[in-house]
Amino acid sequence: MTPDSPLPPIPARSWAIIDSTLREGEQFARGNFKRGDKIEIARALNAFGAEFLEVTTPMVSAQTAQDIRTLAGLGLKAKILTHVRCHMDDVQRAVDLGVDGLDLLFGTSSFLREFSHGKSIGQIIDTASEVIGWIKQHHPELQIRFSAEDTFRSQEADLMAVYRAVSALGVHRVGLADTVGVATPRQVYTLVREVRKVIHEDCGIEFHGHNDTGCAVSNAYEAVEAGATHIDTTILGIGERNGITPLGGFLARMFTFDPQGLIDKYDLELLPELDRMIARMVDLPVPWNNYLTGEFAYNHKAGMHLKAIYLNPGAYEAIPPGVFGVGRRIQAGSKVTGKHAIAYRARELGLHYGDEALRQVTDYIKALAEHGELDDAHLEQVLREWVSA
Amino acid sequence: MTPDSPLPPIPARSWAIIDSTLREGEQFARGNFKRGDKIEIARALNAFGAEFLEVTTPMVSAQTAQDIRTLAGLGLKAKILTHVRCHMDDVQRAVDLGVDGLDLLFGTSSFLREFSHGKSIGQIIDTASEVIGWIKQHHPELQIRFSAEDTFRSQEADLMAVYRAVSALGVHRVGLADTVGVATPRQVYTLVREVRKVIHEDCGIEFHGHNDTGCAVSNAYEAVEAGATHIDTTILGIGERNGITPLGGFLARMFTFDPQGLIDKYDLELLPELDRMIARMVDLPVPWNNYLTGEFAYNHKAGMHLKAIYLNPGAYEAIPPGVFGVGRRIQAGSKVTGKHAIAYRARELGLHYGDEALRQVTDYIKALAEHGELDDAHLEQVLREWVSA
Repeated sequence: MTPDSPLPPIPARSWAIIDSTLREGEQFARGNFKRGDKIEIARALNAFGAEFLEVTTPMVSAQTAQDIRTLAGLGLKAKILTHVRCHMDDVQRAVDLGVDGLDLLFGTSSFLREFSHGKSIGQIIDTASEVIGWIKQHHPELQIRFSAEDTFRSQEADLMAVYRAVSALGVHRVGLADTVGVATPRQVYTLVREVRKVIHEDCGIEFHGHNDTGCAVSNAYEAVEAGATHIDTTILGIGERNGITPLGGFLARMFTFDPQGLIDKYDLELLPELDRMIARMVDLPVPWNNYLTGEFAYNHKAGMHLKAIYLNPGAYEAIPPGVFGVGRRIQAGSKVTGKHAIAYRARELGLHYGDEALRQVTDYIKALAEHGELDDAHLEQVLREWVSA
Repeated sequence: MTPDSPLPPIPARSWAIIDSTLREGEQFARGNFKRGDKIEIARALNAFGAEFLEVTTPMVSAQTAQDIRTLAGLGLKAKILTHVRCHMDDVQRAVDLGVDGLDLLFGTSSFLREFSHGKSIGQIIDTASEVIGWIKQHHPELQIRFSAEDTFRSQEADLMAVYRAVSALGVHRVGLADTVGVATPRQVYTLVREVRKVIHEDCGIEFHGHNDTGCAVSNAYEAVEAGATHIDTTILGIGERNGITPLGGFLARMFTFDPQGLIDKYDLELLPELDRMIARMVDLPVPWNNYLTGEFAYNHKAGMHLKAIYLNPGAYEAIPPGVFGVGRRIQAGSKVTGKHAIAYRARELGLHYGDEALRQVTDYIKALAEHGELDDAHLEQVLREWVSA
């Protein structure tokens, strides 16, 4: 792949979102959604077009189990999945709640085998066989995912044995989970390709990536490139620690490959509402550096940038902001502004300067802005006074 | 590369940081640093161990030019570079300020050639020859970088012609800039490898990546993997729009490959102070989802996680928090807590329950937490009362 070759065509129809705001999001420090919140989140994600919603295990409490039943009964187009340990107790509590599927997980890394559940790979496969066999026999209507927790610190031979076994047992998806956020984009790409070889052709591949080392978006993208069919996201990326692949960040990334495909699948203009909804529920602001919907995501400031932005916003914007329901902001009154930006703003006000006057007023504005940036009203005042001076 | 093969050894000594908080950071909406701020930022980054500091062009104003002279005169170990257009006017204003080098830039994409400066590739090379030749002749003491702005939307043949030409002219580094934040990790990797082939073996490669599509950290990492020698960062990632590779996020990523190398190069425990300093200066909070230093970066909540964390924090932490001067938080009083976490907290209080009592108190706490999470004091109260009940 070279920069001037066309970007790889990853059609948006080849992958689906499993939004886990209602599960991973409840593992965020401030995530503790009440029934009303859960219904609001589920309806909002459904309106947006998210294909799957993952919810917290019913093992949490009787209240949580009831809430799952409520969500499953809303009649949403989005399929409802519940996240449970690969354990008969958990599964038996989950199957009668009206959900569309069960997301099973089991730790396969030496860390989790030693410090969490204490089982060998053989025992993991035996347990998986029992649990999956029971679900297939008694609840054939349920979609089953089997995920190897902490995949990227597991031995490859162990992983392949487990994925091959659960695929043969008839699961609908296998899951790769970067549980501690340590995987690199090429590791994800490589491993997804390897997993593809050992599972049934109808078996999907799901990727779940934490963001501790800043790769949650790019890892999700590389997973799709390698053949993953399902990506876990949460709104604003909320989850354990600093969270997982954020819905908005992932959509920003994928938009560049198939804009129309994303527009066809999702109601993208609802993204700002989704981000604000979760910010309100966890009582925190939308981060000011958030993808697409952050306060400054489309703020343009340097004179060289403004000069081009006025002529063609694509010169400094990878994604048109309007598609995601947000606006552009031109910050023309700063010390790093330039004469093209000043001339443009002046023309908008019906003012015209000669070359020398334009250079002088620009220098004056830049010097003035050293002491504090000029807002639009102040900039207009300076420009009008300069003409009449 | 497979998950069980060792991670690639990228020694920390093979790359250096060019921190651009004092340049790219001034293109952030809220970045307008006064002289005192600039000195504080420069000294803090120098104390941290950043190898290079990039500062705003002297073309901004007389004040900015004076500030550059002041920064260059501080006697820091960090080298001071100023960022200027590849233009004689700019260069002649910059050479006498006492800086260690000039970071030249020129737009090479069709977007910028059409909507910014209007020059052909041949004209770009001619201008570069004139400017670089003049610097080499009159200021051989200055390090020179030549960067192709909007590299990843430029034609590869154009790029190679430009990089080959400027390398032959004797620049110290060539720069690849993902100006609109659209590059993918593998594009960066591939292009850096290609550039390596056409430039002189002593010529460094610098990568500058915006974060519009969530790949600024992973792209910087892949650049290093492919042979880049210098990475641009800013504190908190501040810059145009939603910014560039954040210093903390990049260090988190690289730490996983050569922990001791990073510890040897940088005073990592100063990172929280750096992040807080910039947050104060731009009058915004450190984002709650920030790498390493965000409020919840080391918050552990789910019962399955807590069970393992008590035994070995590495089970759910890619990087030990103490290395970066931050602490861990165990959130044991939530609805997703578990009996191991409750037993651990009880033992810390000198309390012991039998199996059945532990199960009961855990269920009680989870049900209680459905209505609002228990803080430490509330959790302690419940645990003590349960024993005495």
